[in-house]
Amino acid sequence: MGDEEKILFANDAFYAAFARADMSAMAEIWAHRHSVSVIHPGGDVVQGRAAVLDSWRTILDPVDAFDIEMRAPQARDHKGLGLVVCYEQVGPHALIASNLFAREDDVWRIVHHQSGPSPVMPDADAVPGAPVH
Amino acid sequence: MGDEEKILFANDAFYAAFARADMSAMAEIWAHRHSVSVIHPGGDVVQGRAAVLDSWRTILDPVDAFDIEMRAPQARDHKGLGLVVCYEQVGPHALIASNLFAREDDVWRIVHHQSGPSPVMPDADAVPGAPVH
Repeated sequence: MGDEEKILFANDAFYAAFARADMSAMAEIWAHRHSVSVIHPGGDVVQGRAAVLDSWRTILDPVDAFDIEMRAPQARDHKGLGLVVCYEQVGPHALIASNLFAREDDVWRIVHHQSGPSPVMPDADAVPGAPVH
Repeated sequence: MGDEEKILFANDAFYAAFARADMSAMAEIWAHRHSVSVIHPGGDVVQGRAAVLDSWRTILDPVDAFDIEMRAPQARDHKGLGLVVCYEQVGPHALIASNLFAREDDVWRIVHHQSGPSPVMPDADAVPGAPVH
């Protein structure tokens, strides 16, 4: 598996944990050694592993599952750091996100996530375009 | 100058070009060899250097200056890639942005920018907190 596939695999794992409201999987996919931060839609930045995981607990602990569907991810590898841009359908809301991944040992883990409003939403079966170089 | 200072310097250069509506400086600060992308507030992702610069021309060409003030940047270095989270006061609108930088030769250039709504805006003279590790 090439690095871009591994980054997409980590991105899938992030959204799988999110949709299952699985805090232990969410804690695993966030970086353990790199600095981390998150900007939830409409929220301020949250920094540091403890605060980032607390922000996820606030979102995920009250529910058994979270109505989110990730679509049309595009990944690229910047010399060992991975960037994924993808869409998020959250109930009626169309969002677009930037997810940044770093390799820790041989595992790609997320170090930063920002999500905000999107004017468009690809179809659920949309094939993402090839990365533009 | 340490890498975090150099990343903040590049981030300052990005917003200086933005505020001056200086397309030639904007073209210089965006990466030449790395893949690039931008998500303007409320916009879809724009990918590739030509399309990204076109999107800036659409914003900057009609004006002599752009009413944007960047505040409270916080930078961190992830093994050669730089992430800056900062706030943007654009007229009455409070925004928060993630800016990703890569080193090309000895220059840090921007490879990705996402900006979206922020619920808060630090004072103009706010001193950003130390990076949380």
